[in-house]
Amino acid sequence: MLYDFEFYNPTKIYFGKESLNNLKTELNHYGKNILFVYGGGSIKKIGLYDSIIKILQETSKNVFELAGVMPNPTYEKMMEGAHLIEKHHIDFILAVGGGSVIDCAKGISVAAYQKNPWEKYWINHEDVLHEVIPVGSVLTMVGTGSEMNGGSVITNEEKKLKKGRVFPQKVYPKFSILDPKITYSVPKYQMLSGIFDIFSHLMEQYFSNQDDNVSDDLLEALMKSLIKNTYKAIKDPCNYEARSNIEWISTLALNGLTEVSKTQDWQVHSIEHQLGAYTDCAHGMGLAAISVPYYRFLLSFAPQKFAQFAVNVFQVETKNRSVEEVAKMGIDALAKFIKDTGMCSTLKELNATREMLPLIAASTDLGGGYHDLTQQEVLQILESCYE
Amino acid sequence: MLYDFEFYNPTKIYFGKESLNNLKTELNHYGKNILFVYGGGSIKKIGLYDSIIKILQETSKNVFELAGVMPNPTYEKMMEGAHLIEKHHIDFILAVGGGSVIDCAKGISVAAYQKNPWEKYWINHEDVLHEVIPVGSVLTMVGTGSEMNGGSVITNEEKKLKKGRVFPQKVYPKFSILDPKITYSVPKYQMLSGIFDIFSHLMEQYFSNQDDNVSDDLLEALMKSLIKNTYKAIKDPCNYEARSNIEWISTLALNGLTEVSKTQDWQVHSIEHQLGAYTDCAHGMGLAAISVPYYRFLLSFAPQKFAQFAVNVFQVETKNRSVEEVAKMGIDALAKFIKDTGMCSTLKELNATREMLPLIAASTDLGGGYHDLTQQEVLQILESCYE
Repeated sequence: MLYDFEFYNPTKIYFGKESLNNLKTELNHYGKNILFVYGGGSIKKIGLYDSIIKILQETSKNVFELAGVMPNPTYEKMMEGAHLIEKHHIDFILAVGGGSVIDCAKGISVAAYQKNPWEKYWINHEDVLHEVIPVGSVLTMVGTGSEMNGGSVITNEEKKLKKGRVFPQKVYPKFSILDPKITYSVPKYQMLSGIFDIFSHLMEQYFSNQDDNVSDDLLEALMKSLIKNTYKAIKDPCNYEARSNIEWISTLALNGLTEVSKTQDWQVHSIEHQLGAYTDCAHGMGLAAISVPYYRFLLSFAPQKFAQFAVNVFQVETKNRSVEEVAKMGIDALAKFIKDTGMCSTLKELNATREMLPLIAASTDLGGGYHDLTQQEVLQILESCYE
Repeated sequence: MLYDFEFYNPTKIYFGKESLNNLKTELNHYGKNILFVYGGGSIKKIGLYDSIIKILQETSKNVFELAGVMPNPTYEKMMEGAHLIEKHHIDFILAVGGGSVIDCAKGISVAAYQKNPWEKYWINHEDVLHEVIPVGSVLTMVGTGSEMNGGSVITNEEKKLKKGRVFPQKVYPKFSILDPKITYSVPKYQMLSGIFDIFSHLMEQYFSNQDDNVSDDLLEALMKSLIKNTYKAIKDPCNYEARSNIEWISTLALNGLTEVSKTQDWQVHSIEHQLGAYTDCAHGMGLAAISVPYYRFLLSFAPQKFAQFAVNVFQVETKNRSVEEVAKMGIDALAKFIKDTGMCSTLKELNATREMLPLIAASTDLGGGYHDLTQQEVLQILESCYE
């Protein structure tokens, strides 16, 4: 059944080969002073930087830049952006990049003109009562879903904390431009990391509640579709069919649609956030490594749901098999998917040291869908996927 | 693959048993003068009218009423509402009812203060450049999806024309309140009509394009889920699990989500609109009667897609069967679903006369997904489902 929920997502999506053509019209709705936020320079290599600057010039904007947003955007970087907002009276933030850049832009939009934003918004999760600087995005890398939600994950290096926060609708991007061709240039490792991030978002929503629910039906459809399109994208990274489907699945996986009435889990993400804080590993690869031992551990708390996953997502045959056997085969199929596609399955590959594991476990936020892990259980899961 | 698209849906949904509690807060965002639009009085029988009036009083609104909106809302009724808007300087339209009431409310919101709205907006499909009166809805009957889109189907009795129009986002309801318990009181015939309307929306989007596409994956998931929940709802109309899933599927089926990058068909709806203009039949029952002969006719233009439908929606076994055989078995399964659930399969049941058929065929708008029907082919389809 569906429990009571609210659904409201006011982000406008422009999707496809010609989608960048809409940027000029959208920018006309906002003021003169633009903060152009981007990452490590890959947008310069592919010519996107020049295209954006040309559009900004054509709309006669005053352009200020915040370059160098890193894969796990830091609080320090975010505050550098917030100070630029104040200094130049910025009217609009244009984020061009992957989820990290958009997360950072949303963080900037909330933090500008505020005192102690880290404590207020990422630690104490206070409501955002003030007006925020509007954000728009051009997405270059898929996975986080940040282009159509209020999520903002920021790493406080000083405090060794990576904290995610879902902001209300006024912080969502006003518009996001998604051109799947732009994602062709992402290196295979990053592509796979993004894909497993999507898969993990779907699983973290799916493995909660056990009653019959249209959200689960949609989650299963998206997981199946993602697997199918991933194999096509690995074979040919320039397969537009595969890349366009993956990009849209990525957005739908975390725009609020599939989570309605789901209690959700997010324990894998919580563990990975601390793994990321210690190793700075690619987020999706961290999730891939943690997922198999985590779900093997979780299986006994909801065997029926894991069996449903096995059948509906990985087409496991049920004939002459117990629920537990089918459920286990679903996790085996997940492990095979991770291995076959070349994603990570050990923490060692991600440069974690054995010494880090207790520190990661001790700093992980606890609370799950079917079972609340203890710190000791987190450590046990981390140890079982160390090498 | 996904063709270029825009997706933007700013309607806020409140869903569930306690969802009506949000009406007061929402109304506080709008002005004093409210036009309360509803249908034939069933909302009085179930006590909803009183609950709404109480909330309107608590928010100190000036309430004006437009009662008696009929299942196929007429242009005359709509204009009665438009005149009330002008006379009482209405600030907000609250539609309480099914799709007909919400369609009518959207029509009123656009037509008020305009000259010749029928020709401008329903015949010539002119853009809506003026400000419209905002609409909010409380849904009592599912099917049309009107609670989260810009659709407005209006019947011009004088001209014998039933015309649908999809308005831009500013005409979408600002909010819609969906309480599945309210739908329990809908008579079984109307419940089934609404359910087939949903199924038809999904099929009309699905049977177009033939390449691999995440929209099709979602459409298949929603069709499967709808079938499963329909059987549960027939067995027990007060099964909250079934009714809540059906209500949300109904909204998702026509809120723009599943149509992205789909060329779509809508030929069954076009034929039914004229069937409705002549017989005033329940919309979904008209669709049910037309669908089987229509899809049997269409099958040869896209056998592969019909086979996919058979397998993925109705679990037809493919072993030792040709694509055409599997495809045909999918339509057989659809016919069985219509029969088993007690939906209509002939036009005679819907009070159509043989004399009407050529008139319906001659006035149907043509143009489809895989094949553009001729007027002669429409007539042939109508004749084949007459009795």
